[in-house]
Amino acid sequence: MRESTEQMQPKKAFGWAARDSSGVLCPFTFSRRATGEKDVTFKVLYCGICHSDLHFIKNEFESENQWATAYPLVPGHEIVGVVTEVGSKVEKFQVGDSVGVGCFVGSCHSCDNCANNLESYCPKMIVTYGSTYYDGTTTYGAYSDIMVANEHFVVSIPDNLPLDGGAPLLCAGITVYSPLRYYGLDKPGMHVGVVGLGGLGHLAVKFARAMGVKVTVISTTPNKKKDAIEHLGAYSFLVSRNQDEMQRLSQNFQHAPHPLLPLIGLLKTNGKLVLVGAPEKLPELPVIPLLIGRKIVGGSAAGGLKETQEMINFAAKHSITADIEVIPIEYVNFAMERLSKADVRYRFVIDIGNTLKSSS
Amino acid sequence: MRESTEQMQPKKAFGWAARDSSGVLCPFTFSRRATGEKDVTFKVLYCGICHSDLHFIKNEFESENQWATAYPLVPGHEIVGVVTEVGSKVEKFQVGDSVGVGCFVGSCHSCDNCANNLESYCPKMIVTYGSTYYDGTTTYGAYSDIMVANEHFVVSIPDNLPLDGGAPLLCAGITVYSPLRYYGLDKPGMHVGVVGLGGLGHLAVKFARAMGVKVTVISTTPNKKKDAIEHLGAYSFLVSRNQDEMQRLSQNFQHAPHPLLPLIGLLKTNGKLVLVGAPEKLPELPVIPLLIGRKIVGGSAAGGLKETQEMINFAAKHSITADIEVIPIEYVNFAMERLSKADVRYRFVIDIGNTLKSSS
Repeated sequence: MRESTEQMQPKKAFGWAARDSSGVLCPFTFSRRATGEKDVTFKVLYCGICHSDLHFIKNEFESENQWATAYPLVPGHEIVGVVTEVGSKVEKFQVGDSVGVGCFVGSCHSCDNCANNLESYCPKMIVTYGSTYYDGTTTYGAYSDIMVANEHFVVSIPDNLPLDGGAPLLCAGITVYSPLRYYGLDKPGMHVGVVGLGGLGHLAVKFARAMGVKVTVISTTPNKKKDAIEHLGAYSFLVSRNQDEMQRLSQNFQHAPHPLLPLIGLLKTNGKLVLVGAPEKLPELPVIPLLIGRKIVGGSAAGGLKETQEMINFAAKHSITADIEVIPIEYVNFAMERLSKADVRYRFVIDIGNTLKSSS
Repeated sequence: MRESTEQMQPKKAFGWAARDSSGVLCPFTFSRRATGEKDVTFKVLYCGICHSDLHFIKNEFESENQWATAYPLVPGHEIVGVVTEVGSKVEKFQVGDSVGVGCFVGSCHSCDNCANNLESYCPKMIVTYGSTYYDGTTTYGAYSDIMVANEHFVVSIPDNLPLDGGAPLLCAGITVYSPLRYYGLDKPGMHVGVVGLGGLGHLAVKFARAMGVKVTVISTTPNKKKDAIEHLGAYSFLVSRNQDEMQRLSQNFQHAPHPLLPLIGLLKTNGKLVLVGAPEKLPELPVIPLLIGRKIVGGSAAGGLKETQEMINFAAKHSITADIEVIPIEYVNFAMERLSKADVRYRFVIDIGNTLKSSS
């Protein structure tokens, strides 16, 4: 039923989809809506691979968070491309513009969050893939040739921001930029720790440095030290587990609570530990250390559209892009395999524009 | 060794102490130091019974928090009295003044926390009882006839603040006032929830209301609703567990994690859950709800001296005192028994001035 509805849509689209929880991605023909009055249609050029793509294609969010994956699923929410068509009432874009879309493509526009430019916290937010759009169709991400999105959810990519390294900014970038701003961790001279040097972490180091903040990278991987300090410019590097302890924990890592205590222990009075991702198992909250240091543990999701554009402009101004490994679409299943082992420095980006070809 | 040192101190003191982890309090003769240059000596008139007094006399903090009780222990850190002697360099007080002392009587005066008037977060803070003072003696609380304290740790009690109902402000009061201020929950029109209507909770309602904040009381005890709304002026009342669930949980309440999820669920986007006490068992932190609402879980301890004085002045201005049951010292063991069952509305205060008599 759903597929037939979508096949009735006028825009033929092609991408790669997961069909079941094996998570294997393979070619998939579908359709997208016609360009509406406020819509922007664009040819996808690059799409980053976010770790949540991996979780979603394997339906790994179902048990923990009750977000079951509906198949077929076309992932991809770190999207840049070039505008090919605009609706009659589009004001911000024209054909030929470089644009980006991130984690969501719709929100209610009437709640307090939307009124405060926090569409990312709107309870009716429509995410970029695997969600249901206003017209009843399923949203599909950008492991595909074209996108159609309401201009409100499209950001402008400045000419001087490389499109390939810029793509991951749309999710990984805003996810670290937003909490640096909201939690006030953006003041020159401050000392911020970045836990985990991956897709998000390496961008957090870059943004924080550009804000004038002193950064310590906290990682379980000692051999990232050189990269952290020499390449990314971190002030210092802290190994969060020694090898013996890693060995011991690796036995039952699935069930080991993510330890908050040592991280909270690193904070000064009034310090803030901000979580931007969810561990598989709920961690225990060490309450006494929070009390006696007036510390907080906070969460943050992606930012709203206003802040996403601000982040993109900030990145362009400070020449911030992700460190990427560009891959052809045919490599995507290998990339997922490597991503599951954290074997990438630091983000895979699919060269959609040059490598995604419909066989039809 | 310790007792002999203390017996060498010139000021004979008398109080009630716990001798072992039975927690039974009984008469105890000890001594206090002479009034130093910067010291204030005062006759204790009233002392509130804080729930942590109960934990400490029974050595209940040892296992969870590694704060073992050293016996004999004279508890009491919600103290008001009248000055009987001042040191030569005391500037703020004179004989006859009404004064108060709270949870601590010393700090390093050189760390960042002390420099920012946050003595309560100084790592070298000396607590009012069961700690070691600079001279090597043990600190004793105010279930006793006299106190000697450095004037920096003494606050002035305005004439219009009743001393009996004012005593609990020195710990319970500042413990709720400080986070209302620090976490910005003090803006007129805001909506704040107070979880648990006890010694701290009922004062939180009073302070929040005086700040112009709308208060919802969240309690496990349905029969506190009338009191919360009609007497304390709460805007609404929410029963946090139904009777069946209470029954079920009461079976193994000792081991049930304090549930954070329903409380976090009550928060709006950017909402704050502030913990001011520690549950017996570490709670699980529900991470996803923090992320998708940009919520925080924060901690707070008692405030510094500057803020404690500010709180006392605010209380005097707005006629805020604790709702108390005044007891004679002879009743203290019964009071502890009742406190362990939460059978008090809402704070016991010992009438030290009129009932504590040395038998010697």
